[in-house]
Amino acid sequence: MVPQPTVFAAGRTGPWRIESSTAVLGEGLPVAPRLTVAPAATPVVDAAWCVRGVHGHARYATAAEARELAARSAPLGRREATCGAMILVRKSAAWWALAQDERRELLEERSRHVSAGARYLPEVARRLFHGREMAEPFDFVTWFDFAPSARDAFDTLVATLRSTEEWTYVDREVDVRLLREDTGAPVPGG
Amino acid sequence: MVPQPTVFAAGRTGPWRIESSTAVLGEGLPVAPRLTVAPAATPVVDAAWCVRGVHGHARYATAAEARELAARSAPLGRREATCGAMILVRKSAAWWALAQDERRELLEERSRHVSAGARYLPEVARRLFHGREMAEPFDFVTWFDFAPSARDAFDTLVATLRSTEEWTYVDREVDVRLLREDTGAPVPGG
Repeated sequence: MVPQPTVFAAGRTGPWRIESSTAVLGEGLPVAPRLTVAPAATPVVDAAWCVRGVHGHARYATAAEARELAARSAPLGRREATCGAMILVRKSAAWWALAQDERRELLEERSRHVSAGARYLPEVARRLFHGREMAEPFDFVTWFDFAPSARDAFDTLVATLRSTEEWTYVDREVDVRLLREDTGAPVPGG
Repeated sequence: MVPQPTVFAAGRTGPWRIESSTAVLGEGLPVAPRLTVAPAATPVVDAAWCVRGVHGHARYATAAEARELAARSAPLGRREATCGAMILVRKSAAWWALAQDERRELLEERSRHVSAGARYLPEVARRLFHGREMAEPFDFVTWFDFAPSARDAFDTLVATLRSTEEWTYVDREVDVRLLREDTGAPVPGG
């Protein structure tokens, strides 16, 4: 019942090929050819980098928004979704010092984060992982998968979010693009 | 900048004497005489039980409520606050399946959780630790300290919270009462 942490480990093996890894803001991640995703209890050896996060309950969406998202969402791991992406984000101390109503106001009322994501459903499937409470270097890891035909849509979604007021609170961001080369790749977070 | 986890370890040593440990709902905790509180990276040996949590950002209080709480709060670790308490709580899957607005409505608009705690400030100081994202058995550990003269006030606060609609979502609760026997006891979570 308790959500189990997931580890994203980059190294020499894994079903996902790392196509690119871009330091959008702040320090990037070491270069590695492949990525493995597994329950965090799995021993990780020889990783160039490894980040952890837990897919828990939603922090901002209202019940109405959650219903709309659920109705329009696609599951991760669709056969045609051979493109993956990980957006790793850390937010500033100023963000975390805000109260819940202030963060919600910035995230949705002023930056339309929830509705921007909804616009690209069901083409772009996503799952959010929280790392902050695990003392990880990134507060959030968002995992996406989509068909090659949705690449432009995904780039537009990412660019839209980066132009928002919410994103001025991001103080580190890495953008990792992936290609699935093994159809048996497990879906992150179950 | 990232909040660091704290460990609460019960065993033969520690500055806090465990006065009582009550299984309010569900399984209790093994009996032990003393409690140590330390950064979670500290090695724990011979513990009868040990739980972890991280004191992070507030999840429900609005900016106005946070300002009022800050203005009225007392710090943990006051010389006269020789009584301690830990309320360990797990909430049900039904709680975690609710959206943010539904949880806020239950917690404050219908159960007055934030304002109930504020009523006992500054006598009863408190700090909340989250364990859910760390795959801990308890979702929340709330640490309190107060002078012996505030014992009845604390009992009233706990009884008030247990009678709320929010508390119907609690599916495990342990209530641990403590006495500080070493004035150098560190304050949980820094």
